[in-house]
Amino acid sequence: MIDIFIFSHMKKILLLLLLPILAKSQQNDTAFIKKIADEMLQNGQAYQLLHYLTKNIGGRLAGSSQYNQAVQWSYETLKKFNSDTVFLQECLVPHWIRGHGDAAFLINKNESNTKKPLSMTAIGNSLGSQNVITAPLLFIENFDDLEKKKEAVKGKIVYYNAAFNPTNIRTFKSYSETAKYRVYGPSHAAKYGAIGVVVRSLSEATNNFPHTGTLVYNDSFPTIPAICIGIEDADYIAANAKTGNWFISLKTHGKMLPDTINHNVIAELKGTEFPNEYITIGGHLDSWDICEGAHDDGAGVVQTMEILRTFKALGYQPKHTIRFVLFANEENGTRGGLKYAALAKDNNEKHIFALESDAGGFTPRGFGFTMSAEKIAAIQPWLFLLNPYGTEFLELGGGGADIGPLYKNFGTPIAGFIPDSQRYFDIHHAANDTFEKVNKRELLLGAVNMAALVYLVDKYGL
Amino acid sequence: MIDIFIFSHMKKILLLLLLPILAKSQQNDTAFIKKIADEMLQNGQAYQLLHYLTKNIGGRLAGSSQYNQAVQWSYETLKKFNSDTVFLQECLVPHWIRGHGDAAFLINKNESNTKKPLSMTAIGNSLGSQNVITAPLLFIENFDDLEKKKEAVKGKIVYYNAAFNPTNIRTFKSYSETAKYRVYGPSHAAKYGAIGVVVRSLSEATNNFPHTGTLVYNDSFPTIPAICIGIEDADYIAANAKTGNWFISLKTHGKMLPDTINHNVIAELKGTEFPNEYITIGGHLDSWDICEGAHDDGAGVVQTMEILRTFKALGYQPKHTIRFVLFANEENGTRGGLKYAALAKDNNEKHIFALESDAGGFTPRGFGFTMSAEKIAAIQPWLFLLNPYGTEFLELGGGGADIGPLYKNFGTPIAGFIPDSQRYFDIHHAANDTFEKVNKRELLLGAVNMAALVYLVDKYGL
Repeated sequence: MIDIFIFSHMKKILLLLLLPILAKSQQNDTAFIKKIADEMLQNGQAYQLLHYLTKNIGGRLAGSSQYNQAVQWSYETLKKFNSDTVFLQECLVPHWIRGHGDAAFLINKNESNTKKPLSMTAIGNSLGSQNVITAPLLFIENFDDLEKKKEAVKGKIVYYNAAFNPTNIRTFKSYSETAKYRVYGPSHAAKYGAIGVVVRSLSEATNNFPHTGTLVYNDSFPTIPAICIGIEDADYIAANAKTGNWFISLKTHGKMLPDTINHNVIAELKGTEFPNEYITIGGHLDSWDICEGAHDDGAGVVQTMEILRTFKALGYQPKHTIRFVLFANEENGTRGGLKYAALAKDNNEKHIFALESDAGGFTPRGFGFTMSAEKIAAIQPWLFLLNPYGTEFLELGGGGADIGPLYKNFGTPIAGFIPDSQRYFDIHHAANDTFEKVNKRELLLGAVNMAALVYLVDKYGL
Repeated sequence: MIDIFIFSHMKKILLLLLLPILAKSQQNDTAFIKKIADEMLQNGQAYQLLHYLTKNIGGRLAGSSQYNQAVQWSYETLKKFNSDTVFLQECLVPHWIRGHGDAAFLINKNESNTKKPLSMTAIGNSLGSQNVITAPLLFIENFDDLEKKKEAVKGKIVYYNAAFNPTNIRTFKSYSETAKYRVYGPSHAAKYGAIGVVVRSLSEATNNFPHTGTLVYNDSFPTIPAICIGIEDADYIAANAKTGNWFISLKTHGKMLPDTINHNVIAELKGTEFPNEYITIGGHLDSWDICEGAHDDGAGVVQTMEILRTFKALGYQPKHTIRFVLFANEENGTRGGLKYAALAKDNNEKHIFALESDAGGFTPRGFGFTMSAEKIAAIQPWLFLLNPYGTEFLELGGGGADIGPLYKNFGTPIAGFIPDSQRYFDIHHAANDTFEKVNKRELLLGAVNMAALVYLVDKYGL
């Protein structure tokens, strides 16, 4: 940690030496960023937009009618905000449907088949069992444990218990350590003959909401049904699995229909000096079906829209063309982001920077960049300007699933907005990711910091 | 801003030069603070304690039976945590009771007396009207406006509309700018003959909960009834007051009974080297009656208890005696804090530092100190150690209502824990300050940073 810290602060030290030179320019920047903040905090519409998106449209998975409603609503709203252009970008997306009547039970054969209903959700992109399947539960701690027990897997329902490590201060680290069980666990277990998989939800919540998300089947093995269960139920299994004679029964109805057409929604502010050089700001318009998708990623969507509204309200004329992009299908395919980057390549577009907000509408902490060490060093002086609004660090590492392809195709510097992460996995991909979990000021402050960063990139480059 | 920023960062620069010398000691500190964090994040009980305090005891205003229940529960819990000593400290507190049946209506005389019920709460320490009083509403923006309109005040019910300034990034600034209307507004209006006062709640919330708090009557003027109303109702009045012929009717039942006895609850860990030198950590055990007092200040109470539990669990033996103090009567008298400092003086105690958590159980941002500029400069290197857990700054300015008297009596350096403030005034002193508004990880991280700071003060002094 110390090395990174010194590295980061060396930039501030350098800045101190440069302050007299920077002073004038900095005053202008300070004043303009204050204007952005005042406009958003006094007149911001992000919160009201989020209310509409979550309450009037709701969950909006790729291929759903709600997704198309969200496209229509955001297209019209961005037009109302007087963007120079608003257009749709067509892309083919996976069309997974959950079906109805999913359920799962924990059965204790030692206690005359006592059935405990489990708080469950089918994992996104999983294929349904259609009928009830019942099998002994095989308790698995992690993939090493699975390897050790592989002879015992056949005919069982594997239960992965990998829990969030609560000592990670940044909760995304815990997520990255455990997400593999939801994504790859089903096929890993199917390889050894499991007939179903149950995964402890990727959360540290103190309630029993199950958290969905996507899986990736390995087509070499049977595409077995797979569900996530709430943390209270997971804790119950962990506490009792060793002493009982436990079975799981489950029934799921997921189906993958043929790919269908969805759209990215894109608004532009034309650049005055470099109209053919692009800065992208975005979030993803789709969400999981079982929730309102308020933090994930309604927040990123309405922050993106708010920044456009504010730039127009302030009469800001960017040097580069700024694209405000609401991406399709981040959750179970990222086809929107892939299409955006593919078209950018086809059209020979020059992309100088892309920023995504997809970590929730919480109070700002910083930004994480994927670009060179030299570039991250060079922008440390911007901390002076952003810090009054909550940004504490501009660090290496980060971006977003939808803008990753831009980096891959062009080496475009990309960044992810990093809000405080303590509450995110309480609600991530779960039914309690609702409008009520979003605080208006926290949401707007995220937009303030994002807008300020884009303003600085537009003015000074990267 | 820049001057403060440079000042703060100069200390980091100095530290860089000192790093080789500090390295060994810092490694030990890093390791011990990590132990604190791991213990709290893995085994912390603060959240469960808060559940008990808020759900089994609830609102606990000075003089109430709930306050005494909270004393008994916290005394027993601190004993269970094996503190070296637990004792109670008696103090006389004001005994205000709200009574039953309070109500208020907005009446439009232009529209055949249409009555709109107002979402209201009597201001704490206010005396009731007993009977319904009805009078024309006088709309007042601020105290200057009151002076201008003073001839018109007589016989009216004054409505103060001073709204939070949303552009203050730290919301306590908005509170400090408007709290005077709730605290002093009633007597200011009574001076000119008002018969009642209505105050816009000190909040920026997007709902209609009324927020209480205390007032201070000036005994030279009549002690008129005074209430706060929810923000939606306040916005309604602000939007309509100029066009209608508006009256207010209200009925309140507040009474000030004779002072009664309450207690501070104090646990100690005896110092090994300086047993007669004290470090105080605390929060206040009382809360307003209309809410569960979860953030205010259940959070500070359970963080204080958690730090004791953790220090004992880690076998930490402080050099100085650490006092864990749950103060009585912060909300409407601060008699607990005054008594604590007065007894410290009577007993010739030496107090080297006091830390209070009374700004909510939100994610950590920093600490604010009341002590000399030299001392604040000297501790900047601690940022290296605290930053991984969320502390971004150690700045001048801050403390707490309960520990202020220690500074006053002894010049003891004091500090206040400063969590992120965006959500605080949505729930402050209102019925929605409930357990559900507290996030477990945010609450515990506050305790982590507080414990680490106290560890550093105990080890290195101030």
